[in-house]
Amino acid sequence: MKKIVLAYSGGLDTTFCALHLSKELGYEVHAVLVNTGGFSTEELKTIEERAGSLGIASFKVLDVVETYYQEVIKYLIFGNVLKNQTYPLSVSAERILQAKSLAEYAKSIGAKSVAHGSTGAGNDQVRFDMIFQTIVPDIEIITPIRDLKLSRQEEIDYLKMHGVSMNFEKAAYSINKGIWGTSVGGKETLTSSDYLPESAWPTQVTETEAKEITLTFEKGELVGVNNKTYEHATDAILEVQTLAAPYGIGRDIHVGDTIIGIKGRVGFEAAAPLVIIKGHQLLEKHTLTKWQMFWKNQQAEFYGNHLHEGHYLDPVMRNLEAFLQSTQEYVSGTVRVLLQPYRFTLLGIISDHDLMSNKFGSYGEMNKGYTADDVKGFTRILGNQTAIFHKVNGEHE
Amino acid sequence: MKKIVLAYSGGLDTTFCALHLSKELGYEVHAVLVNTGGFSTEELKTIEERAGSLGIASFKVLDVVETYYQEVIKYLIFGNVLKNQTYPLSVSAERILQAKSLAEYAKSIGAKSVAHGSTGAGNDQVRFDMIFQTIVPDIEIITPIRDLKLSRQEEIDYLKMHGVSMNFEKAAYSINKGIWGTSVGGKETLTSSDYLPESAWPTQVTETEAKEITLTFEKGELVGVNNKTYEHATDAILEVQTLAAPYGIGRDIHVGDTIIGIKGRVGFEAAAPLVIIKGHQLLEKHTLTKWQMFWKNQQAEFYGNHLHEGHYLDPVMRNLEAFLQSTQEYVSGTVRVLLQPYRFTLLGIISDHDLMSNKFGSYGEMNKGYTADDVKGFTRILGNQTAIFHKVNGEHE
Amino acid sequence: MKKIVLAYSGGLDTTFCALHLSKELGYEVHAVLVNTGGFSTEELKTIEERAGSLGIASFKVLDVVETYYQEVIKYLIFGNVLKNQTYPLSVSAERILQAKSLAEYAKSIGAKSVAHGSTGAGNDQVRFDMIFQTIVPDIEIITPIRDLKLSRQEEIDYLKMHGVSMNFEKAAYSINKGIWGTSVGGKETLTSSDYLPESAWPTQVTETEAKEITLTFEKGELVGVNNKTYEHATDAILEVQTLAAPYGIGRDIHVGDTIIGIKGRVGFEAAAPLVIIKGHQLLEKHTLTKWQMFWKNQQAEFYGNHLHEGHYLDPVMRNLEAFLQSTQEYVSGTVRVLLQPYRFTLLGIISDHDLMSNKFGSYGEMNKGYTADDVKGFTRILGNQTAIFHKVNGEHE
Amino acid sequence: MKKIVLAYSGGLDTTFCALHLSKELGYEVHAVLVNTGGFSTEELKTIEERAGSLGIASFKVLDVVETYYQEVIKYLIFGNVLKNQTYPLSVSAERILQAKSLAEYAKSIGAKSVAHGSTGAGNDQVRFDMIFQTIVPDIEIITPIRDLKLSRQEEIDYLKMHGVSMNFEKAAYSINKGIWGTSVGGKETLTSSDYLPESAWPTQVTETEAKEITLTFEKGELVGVNNKTYEHATDAILEVQTLAAPYGIGRDIHVGDTIIGIKGRVGFEAAAPLVIIKGHQLLEKHTLTKWQMFWKNQQAEFYGNHLHEGHYLDPVMRNLEAFLQSTQEYVSGTVRVLLQPYRFTLLGIISDHDLMSNKFGSYGEMNKGYTADDVKGFTRILGNQTAIFHKVNGEHE
Repeated sequence: MKKIVLAYSGGLDTTFCALHLSKELGYEVHAVLVNTGGFSTEELKTIEERAGSLGIASFKVLDVVETYYQEVIKYLIFGNVLKNQTYPLSVSAERILQAKSLAEYAKSIGAKSVAHGSTGAGNDQVRFDMIFQTIVPDIEIITPIRDLKLSRQEEIDYLKMHGVSMNFEKAAYSINKGIWGTSVGGKETLTSSDYLPESAWPTQVTETEAKEITLTFEKGELVGVNNKTYEHATDAILEVQTLAAPYGIGRDIHVGDTIIGIKGRVGFEAAAPLVIIKGHQLLEKHTLTKWQMFWKNQQAEFYGNHLHEGHYLDPVMRNLEAFLQSTQEYVSGTVRVLLQPYRFTLLGIISDHDLMSNKFGSYGEMNKGYTADDVKGFTRILGNQTAIFHKVNGEHE
Repeated sequence: MKKIVLAYSGGLDTTFCALHLSKELGYEVHAVLVNTGGFSTEELKTIEERAGSLGIASFKVLDVVETYYQEVIKYLIFGNVLKNQTYPLSVSAERILQAKSLAEYAKSIGAKSVAHGSTGAGNDQVRFDMIFQTIVPDIEIITPIRDLKLSRQEEIDYLKMHGVSMNFEKAAYSINKGIWGTSVGGKETLTSSDYLPESAWPTQVTETEAKEITLTFEKGELVGVNNKTYEHATDAILEVQTLAAPYGIGRDIHVGDTIIGIKGRVGFEAAAPLVIIKGHQLLEKHTLTKWQMFWKNQQAEFYGNHLHEGHYLDPVMRNLEAFLQSTQEYVSGTVRVLLQPYRFTLLGIISDHDLMSNKFGSYGEMNKGYTADDVKGFTRILGNQTAIFHKVNGEHE
Repeated sequence: MKKIVLAYSGGLDTTFCALHLSKELGYEVHAVLVNTGGFSTEELKTIEERAGSLGIASFKVLDVVETYYQEVIKYLIFGNVLKNQTYPLSVSAERILQAKSLAEYAKSIGAKSVAHGSTGAGNDQVRFDMIFQTIVPDIEIITPIRDLKLSRQEEIDYLKMHGVSMNFEKAAYSINKGIWGTSVGGKETLTSSDYLPESAWPTQVTETEAKEITLTFEKGELVGVNNKTYEHATDAILEVQTLAAPYGIGRDIHVGDTIIGIKGRVGFEAAAPLVIIKGHQLLEKHTLTKWQMFWKNQQAEFYGNHLHEGHYLDPVMRNLEAFLQSTQEYVSGTVRVLLQPYRFTLLGIISDHDLMSNKFGSYGEMNKGYTADDVKGFTRILGNQTAIFHKVNGEHE
Repeated sequence: MKKIVLAYSGGLDTTFCALHLSKELGYEVHAVLVNTGGFSTEELKTIEERAGSLGIASFKVLDVVETYYQEVIKYLIFGNVLKNQTYPLSVSAERILQAKSLAEYAKSIGAKSVAHGSTGAGNDQVRFDMIFQTIVPDIEIITPIRDLKLSRQEEIDYLKMHGVSMNFEKAAYSINKGIWGTSVGGKETLTSSDYLPESAWPTQVTETEAKEITLTFEKGELVGVNNKTYEHATDAILEVQTLAAPYGIGRDIHVGDTIIGIKGRVGFEAAAPLVIIKGHQLLEKHTLTKWQMFWKNQQAEFYGNHLHEGHYLDPVMRNLEAFLQSTQEYVSGTVRVLLQPYRFTLLGIISDHDLMSNKFGSYGEMNKGYTADDVKGFTRILGNQTAIFHKVNGEHE
């Protein structure tokens, strides 16, 4: 029997795929759930149990949270990546890692086929296919949902016919959860004009009192929260999430260009990513030079877009990561953040690498190290070319 | 007597300058207050009265709010310019316009000297000098405060000695107000770690009920607020300010690189600029193509930085403005904004130019105009070079 | 009968298409040759005569050289566009204009179908299809060569069978000629290592004596050659071509990324484009400010790449053109060029807008307008942030 | 006696400085010649002998050619840096390394003062001062030529008075030589319109026969010339120089923006830099992906400009170097170059990392790995957004 590795999430589409690949297409199905932080132990257990009823050869959970951090999230923090100034790439980033993990797993067990449950309508199909065709170029890619174009009801009927029992009710809002944020889609996000109702957000607001927390970064990586030090940044991220999420922080709607050219909208809540990125960015404003920030911004925007569009394996990504890593040498210090319902305020930072140190002069007060005459000379030279331009071209004479 | 044009704001420094230039240096002083929206009619009257006691030849108010909008603010909106992702350039932008207006006024009355009250410690001196040396290159620039290095008390003593009466008490927070925002400096902003207290903000929060407003843009310019149409964008800006400011919206601390190389921090409240820029940006996400947004961001960051550093007259700024203007052709539509205490939410947009129109497919649902096979082919070709790269270099084999 | 507009060049592939569309598919074929400067009157006559034997409904030559200049070439000169620092986009640029002209022609005669003779292996199919699907989105696109995958011999046999007589011999080098350059492909360009032999170049070197010529630009456009003024820049371009081509100037091999992800190589000779672009660029070095040049380069590289890949109708291209146009305000003056066999030397420029005018100081000699102390102050401030950075981070202590 | 380190080149200005610092200012003068490849052993001996007659405490030659390569030249090659598409930064790059070496030497011998012979008119003063104020911030900088504003004749008279004998005749062309090129200034370069005469070039053309050479790169570094392997890239560079210089290759005039805002012109001959950079760039066209090249170009332009303006110690330079280094992973292979009088031709490359390998399809021929239908789908999706834009905005309907 031909081995196939199926990207399995336990939802309707991939449950259908498991059964279909096994029963109709005769594959030896190895269902793999790549956990990027969105599944609890309990949820995984439920999923595993159901998987047992689908006639598959094996079910496996790959816990890739640490790899996800080391290979993707870390650079999203270094680059302060918020797509279109808003969205921390919660879903796009994890798809990449999932596809990569699946491809490597398929290779490791000698499978000659992989399957995913993407439809023909979104970004995920492109991300999965692009990663697969690069890492396992000779492997066959099977996409039953995209190819069969079944309706939701047809999938349900098929599963029921084969005695699969699960909750077939369609949720009002489709949710995708991972360590770097949760996306929320619903009828409002299909319009351009409407916002998600309070009830649609997965995490409801339960904290009402303001609370100050601190984030400690070491070379750009989050290593401490509130004076507790973490060995794994992923644990620190989860701690920030635990602290900030109950305030309803980090909610918004992302409007963006899909890889396939249409515009789309999706809600997200990402308390930890927003607090961490903005805190990290503030620390950079104090510790990087002007041109470091300029080039980081220019490149990080492209890095985020290129990742979003599935180009993670383009070697330019490794080159941009080398740049980003290099900029973090002195991005160390502590950021004070005030959490309040629906918002957070960056209060300030403390860092040994703070270039604002008043040893070198305070803004608006007379400075050490240079004189008023220096500034006059500076200005005269700095404006020299523009002054010459206007003299030559006579616009102001 | 030699004519001198003095940039006059009515504060301690420029009041000192007026008297000093006239009494000690023997100039015929023409004090000019360039109003960029920060002075009420009442305040102007008070200032004018005091000016009368300083032995100056003339006092004049130049109301440049409309010019300020047409020559600067408009492009800051087109570019969604928030320096370091935060600051709408409230002060830097108006200094440019003030310097330019003063230079042109000096030329118009045949003055051979100009004076400004900048110290030797900040950005303003550079902005004033750079604009002056370009527009009126042969004019003498006098800067008593920078050159004499007087203490605050020495200035006060001198003014008192000459019988000038004004409020000499130093405010706990120094405020600079204009139509594009108000800056707030105080003892906290001289540190890296502390935030401004609630009482320091010029506008106190008086609105507590959520309120939805709409902003209507036409080719990128704000032309309507809440169904009322405005002939002058400046009036629309003021209306947004009136609606949003009492919510305490648009407050933050800017951390940035000064022109002279040190880092500085300044608080600001800029309700209208933040609401307008973020609303405008959302409209662009719906109406511009991916690469329009990419290039706008790349250039607008430089545009903002270059303006901030006083390079307004570098011809590259006109070139970048031509680009920005050109991008706004279809940035027309209405943005729904929800105002709440200390925050605002962009609810959505309505636009005839919305590229998200579901006439062309909805994200996550099957689309018109292309098939699943198209996407497969698309992906195969899109990832072709990266796949070849990895085949050639064998990293994944 | 259904009208179809066929992109017709008189070569084997499009001759086959004409016959095939008419005889096999039953279309009313309107063959259109879009001349971008590559065909002489004589050649057009020959092509027209042969077209008469193909059973088509009409043959038409659209002379678009002037449009080509106004809509494309002009901006390639403004941007000094040489793809990968080498190639003036001789072929890619004209395909865009040809596709656009064909689409507009099809619309004007009410055709519901268009055809082109591209194979499935190159860039041209993408360019044609992309332009068509945007300008005439509802039109059917027929591509017989791509779809039938016929060999050269099969096409020849089919034409012979239908009594079409033309020179069926395969040239050793395939040539594509237009006003902005001629491409040359052959067995060497299919390798990575070999260069084209002297005999492969369409224009053989017949001039051996050095000759100085002058190019006069007005706002970035070529308006004069050797003191003769031209009303149409295209005539000036042809004059430069006439003067420079016999020297074997402007030959090279372009190595580049195709739209479909593979790398390709193609020879080209483009005497006029190279001499004009390099001359124009030298004039800019004298008349633009530092940041104008920086941003022109950043954007022009993307502009060239995006054009090359068929994205001419992406509105970002109009925005970039607005920028480029704006930079040309003072790019006026005369460039001295020395032509010699296989090379040319830019001798210098003369311009009223030359910012190097020694009225403002000569490099290496003491300058007017500022003093040594000014430069000391300038340097102290300019290096301030870097000095602070190293003090804080102690790398040099 | 106070120790001072003097940047000494053996020319008139620094000879004057040596005597002046010792005799008039009473310093213990340590003259240091930092050799970046421009001085032969013989020349150094002559200079050392003369130095002995100037009453200085010590004379030392620092041979920094290898450091110069490792810290600067390597990255200029990685980035294919040609300022304004022309100039390999022959002089600017070596000034940086010279200043850095002098600063470190001063620190090592405990000198509290440094001196250089720059005038107040050029770039070098800024480069020296900026590097000094960062590496040795508390050191005093003495610049006699800039401060005393002596004429050439006054310097000569002073030296003659003190019995210093050297060739006081002013050369018609001032020459600055280093391993990365030789600059040539003369009366023609002070104009905008005139070119240097044949006789002005330091290396006269003596080779007339065409010769093919090969350059072998390993991870972007030149390791072989003509099948000979070099341990030190500097030796390989010298070999290329020996081969190519007698052809008169790599001559041009650089027109550029000085740091102090004026435009300047300088001739240069740089056979090895031009041949190596262009060869390296061709190899990159075959081995890098499209976006690697795009970002390399964007950043390298800034890297070159920032270096040219003396900002070598801005940490952003280290970050950009990390990026550049990362891109070179597979830039390995051999480049064939044909040398001919006054020009060279890049014939082609051979590389195991060549992405053009016809294993993946040849341009213009049918390709493996994808079908015509794939390309149709690709094009449909690729042009989707632009097509939607035009449908929505109706420009083409």
